[in-house]
Parts: sequence; structure tokens; C-alpha cells
Amino acid sequence: MLDAALLGTGGMTPLPTRFLTSLMLRVNGSQLVVDCGEGTQVTMKLLGWGYKNIDVLCFTHFHADHIAGLPGLLHAINTSVRREPLTLVGPPGLKAVAAGLMVIAKELEYEVNIIEIPYRRFGPPESIKLGDHLIGALPLDHRGPCLGYSFEYKRAGLFDVEKARANNVPMAFWSRLQKKGEAIEEMGVVYKPEMVMGPPRRSIKVSYCTDTRPVPNLPEFIKGSDLFVCEGMYGDIEMLPKTASHKHMIFQEAAEIAKEAAVKELWLTHYSPALTQPEQQLPVARGIFPNTVCGRDRMVKVINYED
Amino acid sequence: MLDAALLGTGGMTPLPTRFLTSLMLRVNGSQLVVDCGEGTQVTMKLLGWGYKNIDVLCFTHFHADHIAGLPGLLHAINTSVRREPLTLVGPPGLKAVAAGLMVIAKELEYEVNIIEIPYRRFGPPESIKLGDHLIGALPLDHRGPCLGYSFEYKRAGLFDVEKARANNVPMAFWSRLQKKGEAIEEMGVVYKPEMVMGPPRRSIKVSYCTDTRPVPNLPEFIKGSDLFVCEGMYGDIEMLPKTASHKHMIFQEAAEIAKEAAVKELWLTHYSPALTQPEQQLPVARGIFPNTVCGRDRMVKVINYED
Repeated sequence: MLDAALLGTGGMTPLPTRFLTSLMLRVNGSQLVVDCGEGTQVTMKLLGWGYKNIDVLCFTHFHADHIAGLPGLLHAINTSVRREPLTLVGPPGLKAVAAGLMVIAKELEYEVNIIEIPYRRFGPPESIKLGDHLIGALPLDHRGPCLGYSFEYKRAGLFDVEKARANNVPMAFWSRLQKKGEAIEEMGVVYKPEMVMGPPRRSIKVSYCTDTRPVPNLPEFIKGSDLFVCEGMYGDIEMLPKTASHKHMIFQEAAEIAKEAAVKELWLTHYSPALTQPEQQLPVARGIFPNTVCGRDRMVKVINYED
Repeated sequence: MLDAALLGTGGMTPLPTRFLTSLMLRVNGSQLVVDCGEGTQVTMKLLGWGYKNIDVLCFTHFHADHIAGLPGLLHAINTSVRREPLTLVGPPGLKAVAAGLMVIAKELEYEVNIIEIPYRRFGPPESIKLGDHLIGALPLDHRGPCLGYSFEYKRAGLFDVEKARANNVPMAFWSRLQKKGEAIEEMGVVYKPEMVMGPPRRSIKVSYCTDTRPVPNLPEFIKGSDLFVCEGMYGDIEMLPKTASHKHMIFQEAAEIAKEAAVKELWLTHYSPALTQPEQQLPVARGIFPNTVCGRDRMVKVINYED
């Protein structure tokens, strides 16, 4: 089971009525956050999931509306009495940007590790594993290096008694093979987990894409997502030229990508401050991809594994 | 005339119900801001005085709750289409801290000048003039270099006809001497402005003090203030040992300073997040200095010159 919370839905600047776009995932007691603009620690406080279990902070890029909240959040995590290391993930340059911002967050009582993901425009996705978080990162097309993310949570298959018997696996090893997932050697015979387990079951996948123009390999990258969180700066088609010139997308473009990738649900976010009533623009997007939802601050979705 | 607005009243961390402590002054079309924690640009938006005329940003010190909002505010000022230079003022180290934070505010279309004020614990105040803002800066006693500020707005005397006549100043020079404030030489005789002007009238003075323990020369520094904005982390006397150990003050200490300096009005601010009902602690402070007010976010005071 995974909980997803959209911490904010604004783009460019924080508003009294709208926090900046940020996503929090919570799975197996570990929290992961994507982007952290000015005020993200405050909307987190309103959400109430706490700071202590934030293990990973992913950054799409280094525009202030996506990262200015970093030092404040690091302090909030420190005050929550976290002492375990925290990992920051982002495009090349993250180390320098974090070092700059952390000039006012020097006295943390936990370690901050930084992973820079290679970036090549229109290049292939990269993949890293941090705890239970299998993180995919796809180069996007914005003003400077920017990454889209996917987060996948694998689920092992069911124990298959008949398979275990057919493979002559001694019953004494069944539980170890299933739970530890490691091979066992006994009297010169090697018993592997796959000799007792059915095929892996469907994983949970959440993907996140902002700020960018549509890129060719994005639908493939987000395929199979239970939830696709995607920017929509404006809904009105007349805003497309301006939006595209700033390297952003409109609602319809997000919906086209969701449709092509056949995701389960699309949440629009990263609205322009000028877009005060995003729901008014929703029908056109729903005409393309029916399961489109206008993101709202602290909207939460619980995603269960399929049985 | 001067307008003062307390943008926030929180200490340590921004809350959903309370912005971080910051003060904005507006005088003769120029705005000056003291401190700028995470979210200050948002409470400024709620206040509605705009960003474009912010000429000076003063920083007391470099703890995140006083400066983390700098890059976001610089962007907001840029978006307001300001093109005139902006001056940052603060203790030694400001250049390095600003350079760090501005790693995400590199593309501003105005110049940012930085003035570092010398700091020596318990040392004398320094003074600088920026436009109409006569800024005094007093070393405070916090964890690291920290400055208290005073802001004084001088007012010339009235034109004195009898004095001008007694000094034999030709009537043709009266207006120039009054308005330009510069001496005029004519036929070997020098006419000075003070030959036609009465004594300077009472100025407007606002002072601001956080974060610190009481320092000996603070009452003298703030003397004559129409408004004294001062930290009060807690109101309960039982919190004094903890408050003092963190180099902060409680309500009673602020009131004692206001009383000794005989200021006109004291605004308490920089409350601990644990202090949710500061008004409950007000009576003791008022017992010491009756004109004590519990600061509230976006509380505004208009201060007129006395006639």
C-alpha cells in the first residue's frame, strides 16, 4: 500500500491560497518527497505526516519554485529528531545548489547524501534504488536540466506449494526462500527463491512530470502508472504558444500523454498564478483522458496492491 | 508620515497560522524590510503593498527563520519589474550567505548591493544612510553576530521669516535655502540654510530588536522610538532560563527595555511555536510598560510627524 499526497499545486510563485507543487509518497514507513519550493514545510505540517521519516528528496530542477524550501525543510527534519542519513536526488549541479542553500542549514544532526543523475536532453531514463524506492529519472525538455520521475514499488509473487514440490525443494527451506529471497545450497544442490515462488505481482507505480514540453519517450517512461502527476500551467488552448515558449505544458498536452501511456489516473498541477479556477478548464482535458483530476493542495490518494 | 507593517510574528519555524517575524516600513515611496524568512513574500502579497519599491533589505542575522525567504523575495521583486538597484544590509558574512542563497536567483534584472555592518559584541552602534532611511545598527547578543536596528526619518525645521530678516538674507534666496538646503554665496557673503530655518522638528523613529539577550546599550539605542518592535519568545517567567540559554528574551524583558528607553509603543513578536495564545501573557508585560501590544501578522501602524 502507498499513500500519495500532492503538497501543493502552484507554479512560479507561492500564493496565499496555493502552495508550490510538491509530491509526498509514503510506503513501508518511508517517505519520499519530490520538489520543495518556499513553504513546502508548512503544507507538510498541515498534512500531518511528519518529517522524521523523509528518507529521500528528489528535485526535478533548480528553479526557485522547486527548491527554495530546502534549507527550511532540512531544519524541520532536524527538529523532528531524525538522525538517519537523508538522500537528495537531482540533475547535475545539485551538489553546488545544495551547498549554496545549505549555507543556512549547516548544523544538522544527520548526514545529507547527494546523488546527481546524468542529464542528456531526449536521452534515456536512468534508474536507482534507495530502500524500497525504485526511482526512474527521465531527462525532460525545460530551460536547463530537468528530470521527470517514476517511483515503483515491486511486489513478490505468491508462494507456490505445487511448484516447490515439483522442484523437490525440502519443506524446511520454503520459508527462508520465500522471506529472505536468497538461494540456499545443501548437499551440493542449489535451491533458488524462484523454485518456490509464483511470478511477481503487479507493482505500484507513481510518476511525476514537471516542468517540460512533451518529450518523445515520456509515455513509455510512465507506462503502467497508477497515478501520473503532471504539470498543466494553463487549460486554455490559446495559452499554448506562451506556455510552450516558457517550456511548459497545458492541460490538453498532459491528457494526451496520459492517454498514450494508458495510466490509471492523471492529476494536473503546477498551475500558473493567473489560473485561479483550474476546474473550469477541466472538460477539454477529460475529453482526451477521462480520468483527469484537477490537483488541489494536500489531495491524497491511497494506492493498494492489486490482488 | 511612515507606515509600519509587522509581516509576521513567528520565531524558529513558519506555521500554517503564523508567518515568520519580519517588518516592512514605507516612507516617501520607498520600502524597507527587516528580515525575510521562508514565506515572507506570501505575507507581503496578503498585505498588498507590492514589491517594486523595496529599496533596502536589512538582516538581523543568518538563522534560516530570518533569511531563508531571500531568493524567493528577490524573484518576486524581479517579477514586479523593478530595475533599480536593491541594497542588502546585515552583519559580517552577509556577502557569503547571500551568494549561497542566490545560487537559485541568478537571473535578476536589477543590481543587488551588499553592505556588511561591523559587529563587535557589546560594541557601539553604526550608522548608515540609504536614501531617506537613516539606519542605526547595534550589535546584539545572540548565537553568532546579530544586529538590532533603528530607522530614523528626520524632519527639517519650519521656515523662520524673522530669522531670515534678522540675518539680512535677501528674499530672493529664501526659497532656495529652504528647499535645497545648500549654502549660497553672493558678493562675498555666504548665506546658509540655518539662517532662514527654525530648529529641526521631531523625527520619526522605529526600532527593531531580535534575536538577543538584553544588552546594556539597547535602551539608549532605541530612545525616542515611536515604535519599538521587540522579540518575546515566551511570556511565562518560568520559561526565562530556557529562553535565556537560547539567547532570546521573554515579554517582561522586552517591556523593561521599552520602559527604560521611554519609547511610545512596544510590539512583541517572534513568538515560540509553542506560544499559541500570546495575549494570555500580556498583562505582566503591561504591568511594566502599559503601551505593550501583542504583535499579530500584518498589524499596521501609521506614524505621523508631530506638529
